Amino acid sequence: VTRVVGLGGGIGASRLWRALARAVGPDALTLVVNTGDDLWHHGLRVCPDLDTTLYALSGRQDTERGWGVRGETWRTMDALRELGHEVWFNLGDRDLATHLLRTGLLRDGIGLAGVTARLASAMGVGVRVLPMTEDEVATRIETADGRDLHYEEFLVQHGAAAPVRRVRHDGADAAAPAPGVLDAVAAADVVVLGPSNPVASIDPILAVPGLRSALRAAVDVVAVTSIVARVPVAGTGEERRATSRAALLAADGLPATATTVARRYRDLCHRFVLDSADAEEAEAIRAAGLQVAIVPTLLHRDADGTRLVDAVLGAGQRHRDVDAVPSPAGRA
Amino acid sequence: VTRVVGLGGGIGASRLWRALARAVGPDALTLVVNTGDDLWHHGLRVCPDLDTTLYALSGRQDTERGWGVRGETWRTMDALRELGHEVWFNLGDRDLATHLLRTGLLRDGIGLAGVTARLASAMGVGVRVLPMTEDEVATRIETADGRDLHYEEFLVQHGAAAPVRRVRHDGADAAAPAPGVLDAVAAADVVVLGPSNPVASIDPILAVPGLRSALRAAVDVVAVTSIVARVPVAGTGEERRATSRAALLAADGLPATATTVARRYRDLCHRFVLDSADAEEAEAIRAAGLQVAIVPTLLHRDADGTRLVDAVLGAGQRHRDVDAVPSPAGRA
Repeated sequence: VTRVVGLGGGIGASRLWRALARAVGPDALTLVVNTGDDLWHHGLRVCPDLDTTLYALSGRQDTERGWGVRGETWRTMDALRELGHEVWFNLGDRDLATHLLRTGLLRDGIGLAGVTARLASAMGVGVRVLPMTEDEVATRIETADGRDLHYEEFLVQHGAAAPVRRVRHDGADAAAPAPGVLDAVAAADVVVLGPSNPVASIDPILAVPGLRSALRAAVDVVAVTSIVARVPVAGTGEERRATSRAALLAADGLPATATTVARRYRDLCHRFVLDSADAEEAEAIRAAGLQVAIVPTLLHRDADGTRLVDAVLGAGQRHRDVDAVPSPAGRA
Repeated sequence: VTRVVGLGGGIGASRLWRALARAVGPDALTLVVNTGDDLWHHGLRVCPDLDTTLYALSGRQDTERGWGVRGETWRTMDALRELGHEVWFNLGDRDLATHLLRTGLLRDGIGLAGVTARLASAMGVGVRVLPMTEDEVATRIETADGRDLHYEEFLVQHGAAAPVRRVRHDGADAAAPAPGVLDAVAAADVVVLGPSNPVASIDPILAVPGLRSALRAAVDVVAVTSIVARVPVAGTGEERRATSRAALLAADGLPATATTVARRYRDLCHRFVLDSADAEEAEAIRAAGLQVAIVPTLLHRDADGTRLVDAVLGAGQRHRDVDAVPSPAGRA
């Protein structure tokens, strides 16, 4: 059995997790999910990335809209608007049940890991889904014009349109990895940094004390590119371009390319999975010290994801597939 | 202008408040509503009596079901059940909007009086609706078999079936009247104790420090019977009988009669409005020192409520209507 641990955010990563769960079996897969986007909203604890992950793995996800559950209705939001409330963060009626159940359990003193396990079980998700931490961490965006916004406010309320000056992960310094996270990483045959926004979804996980050193001690760490043809994988349309690009630029002032992503991870990863569309970047990434596999990474182009999954699991390496995995380049 | 202040709970009282608002105009009516049934549920602050009052005054109430709003749907509760949650307290999709809005405002630091004013305004309610207090008070039922239940658990989850040993109003001793309550009582021409369960709905209000002395200083205090033909006015069917009777018995071991109610209020009230069905109790109530008006009190039997409203406002007294208001009996 290959034990796989995946680290990531919501939409972009969950497509890969579904393919990996099919390949290695749900029991062999543990996910460590970003909770930096989590927020208290109307008194409810909303965990966008955990929910997207659970909805995707349970087949509940509305794949057309890209978030929330299929067959959703909006009765409560309509009633909120009738009460004169300006609704900026849409919570569907079915989605609300998830938040109500979670918030009630949290109020009863159950930690977020236990709550998430219970939600996963209720949804029939066999994959182990862990929050990165049970402590509250908030990704905040400082805009160039002086606003200090929760990431979801920046993304949803402001359409990710404002130029970003700085990204913070408030609370991360004092956070502890959720129970099971470090053990899972230590026991993994492969740790996967999913195709999620590096700044918004991966950085908060890496900011939890203990995660970086756990990754450095891991046997095999592979990152899957979150940028294909200079467009971020997650999100939809202009929003995703603006968001992820802005966040990336804010972080390092570098272009939104796979190479930029790979360089961010160079001290944590052994391998990098590059999209075929960006094959010309392979040399630059190898020069950064990473092995490179080049495959189609967008699962809607490569329906069963076999080549992507093989590349992630390192099967290509064992098979000495020259196209998929070039020879190691300079990394001890 | 006759300034009227009404004290009460939910369903039973709100029928009277609607009739009074029509008679004196909404601007002349202030309500002080029981919050002892309020509860935190799934992280949301739910205020059953305040909401019933607002829904009734705004015409939103589902009068057939007796609680909640008309045209309600139950998508979120259905989804909660699908997640394996045993739903005991039903929150409709439209009703949820009220709780979300309230909880969000409370979390923003707005007091319950301000929140309630905002909800009333959003619903187009011109009557001034005040919570009895902005502090948290919880009516708890100790059952004979040793359980200690929140009133809503006792009522909804246990069907009010368990014998009651004792009723507590936790937090009442340390509660302060909500802003505006004492001023409204002091300025009132008439203060009305509504036809609500004396133990479950009126006692919590009277347990807030300052309320009893404010009533004793009031010009004219009238209680409207909450028992007609030995059946409580509020609630529906067997539930209301069991609940209110149990609660009454727990409180004083006395039979569920109008006379029992009148005797509970004797040191606070000048007048008592007795239902025509219980006219034979008038002597006993007069003997307790209260003036008695005898009218039909159930508004579904007396559609416009004119006689009830006149009796409450004391118009009968001014008109020397012998049937409606017998002569004062022994009270200074």
